[in-house]
Amino acid sequence: MTLSQSVRKGDRLALARLLTQVENDTLEGRAALAELFPQTGRAHLIGVTGAPGTGKSSLVNQLALHFRREGKRVAILAVDPSSPFTGGAVLGDRVRMRDLSGDAGVFIRSMATRGSLGGLAQTTAAMSQVFDAAGFDVILIETVGAGQSEVDIARLAHTTIVVEAPGLGDDIQAIKAGILEIADVLVVNKADRPGVENTERALKSMLELAHPTRHVFLHHGREMVVDAPVKAETKMWIPPILRTVATEGTGITELAAHVAAHAAHLRLSGDWAARERARLEAEMEALLVEALMTRFRAEVPNGGFESAVQKVHERTLSPWEAVQLLVNGRQE
Amino acid sequence: MTLSQSVRKGDRLALARLLTQVENDTLEGRAALAELFPQTGRAHLIGVTGAPGTGKSSLVNQLALHFRREGKRVAILAVDPSSPFTGGAVLGDRVRMRDLSGDAGVFIRSMATRGSLGGLAQTTAAMSQVFDAAGFDVILIETVGAGQSEVDIARLAHTTIVVEAPGLGDDIQAIKAGILEIADVLVVNKADRPGVENTERALKSMLELAHPTRHVFLHHGREMVVDAPVKAETKMWIPPILRTVATEGTGITELAAHVAAHAAHLRLSGDWAARERARLEAEMEALLVEALMTRFRAEVPNGGFESAVQKVHERTLSPWEAVQLLVNGRQE
Repeated sequence: MTLSQSVRKGDRLALARLLTQVENDTLEGRAALAELFPQTGRAHLIGVTGAPGTGKSSLVNQLALHFRREGKRVAILAVDPSSPFTGGAVLGDRVRMRDLSGDAGVFIRSMATRGSLGGLAQTTAAMSQVFDAAGFDVILIETVGAGQSEVDIARLAHTTIVVEAPGLGDDIQAIKAGILEIADVLVVNKADRPGVENTERALKSMLELAHPTRHVFLHHGREMVVDAPVKAETKMWIPPILRTVATEGTGITELAAHVAAHAAHLRLSGDWAARERARLEAEMEALLVEALMTRFRAEVPNGGFESAVQKVHERTLSPWEAVQLLVNGRQE
Repeated sequence: MTLSQSVRKGDRLALARLLTQVENDTLEGRAALAELFPQTGRAHLIGVTGAPGTGKSSLVNQLALHFRREGKRVAILAVDPSSPFTGGAVLGDRVRMRDLSGDAGVFIRSMATRGSLGGLAQTTAAMSQVFDAAGFDVILIETVGAGQSEVDIARLAHTTIVVEAPGLGDDIQAIKAGILEIADVLVVNKADRPGVENTERALKSMLELAHPTRHVFLHHGREMVVDAPVKAETKMWIPPILRTVATEGTGITELAAHVAAHAAHLRLSGDWAARERARLEAEMEALLVEALMTRFRAEVPNGGFESAVQKVHERTLSPWEAVQLLVNGRQE
């Protein structure tokens, strides 16, 4: 039985092995992924992004428990990009183990790859496809939200949850505008702490900045209601701002309901298929660039690029001339 | 006389025209840039990054005046990436016109290109090369600091100044960790306002997070001194945190001295040449990917990529298989 067949049969050891292959981007992993690919496209990919200290891991934990109670199989992929702001993945896993260990319907995986930034999003996409093909209904992708790679990873998800918490101070609370622009649901976790209104207000004003199209609402004399309950039939999705206390399980049912509403909204509006297609196209473009670079390296003699860089450094060729010579054997 | 020759002669109209050509990435612009390239490599590229409201434009204005008094020719390139957080470039230019207009030793240019993110950094690099070849000694590159493209642009600079201001509130003050990681000099502008100590403290703690290597200082029983005056002979550069009130010209001389010290540090440590080389290499890699994609589009029949995406969307091919077929005519 091939590795991908074992994964399809529910073999957890095979799944762990394949995930490692895919994370290390081996040929075996790529071949298995190609075999599994026809089985993908069923899972709901949910991104959960927040700075350390927001209680994001506990929230993911609680969401996983909630989806398990609904009978869904849940995969958790904790991404830990190269950043000084991380280190939470391991601790998060320990916390999770208590509630979720021994449950065959849950699979938890931490990525600690400190590779190139573009590569991290690609690897996350590939690992999500493995979980998808292995029959997991929900894939929770947990990120720290501190860099562009995180925005790229969040773009993979059908639904992106951005987690904040009151009173973290200016230095940690700093959430990227880029992340807020792609947030589908906003959560103020640790909502039993003082300062929750301030955090909500800050999120609201950042949302208004991040989605300037929404200012149109004000022209009709109506106040913009960012945290209004959203109906699935609404054409435009307005990210709700919700309160949770993950450690006590408070607000998790409401959060899951909004996540389900967002999925329904995506399917009704046709955005589910559109996001899927955009994601596959981005993946293919990245693979295309990689394949073209591989072919280029095979064509050009060893050290060809480096010696071109040297010539440019010495100002005997311009970067553009050097590249034209490398690619076309002549200047265009 | 060719456009590039006129630019070399100091013709401001020719310079403006060439900058437009380069911004629009025309063939004429590329050819002129290739002609000018041997004349580049002399200017000091200084990135100035800060959120709207930090007074970054006034600070750039004051720095320009300072460098003019030192007899240097100064170019200002204000980059306005596609972001809801911008809109300051035009206002900034108006403020600047008052002090700097009519001075032949200053050239101010705003970029309003709302193109692709990677492309913005590339265009900024190319426009900097034009200024460099045109004989400007200092090129001030002003960015808003809100996204990855800004980090990429900041990486172009020899010296990156990150500007903050007290009391902007959580929602605007949010500076990206990625920007701080590449900051060479930190400025708290509007330092006559209340809350300046808080802002300094926040910057200090973010710096500690952003440069974890520096924690080694603590192991030797010494407290880390982030804002110590930095000597040019220091092997490791420790970003100083400075106070300015740009509207009154306060602290500008000290800021310029630290910028000069950083340049001296780069030259002594060999980092000037290393940064230069890394920048040229990154530029060539981006041009290489572009050239390979152009060649690929010429090889593959019209709609070839789109029909491959369609097959992947239908799950009849995996992304990897589809790309291998496109590039090599077969699966590998």
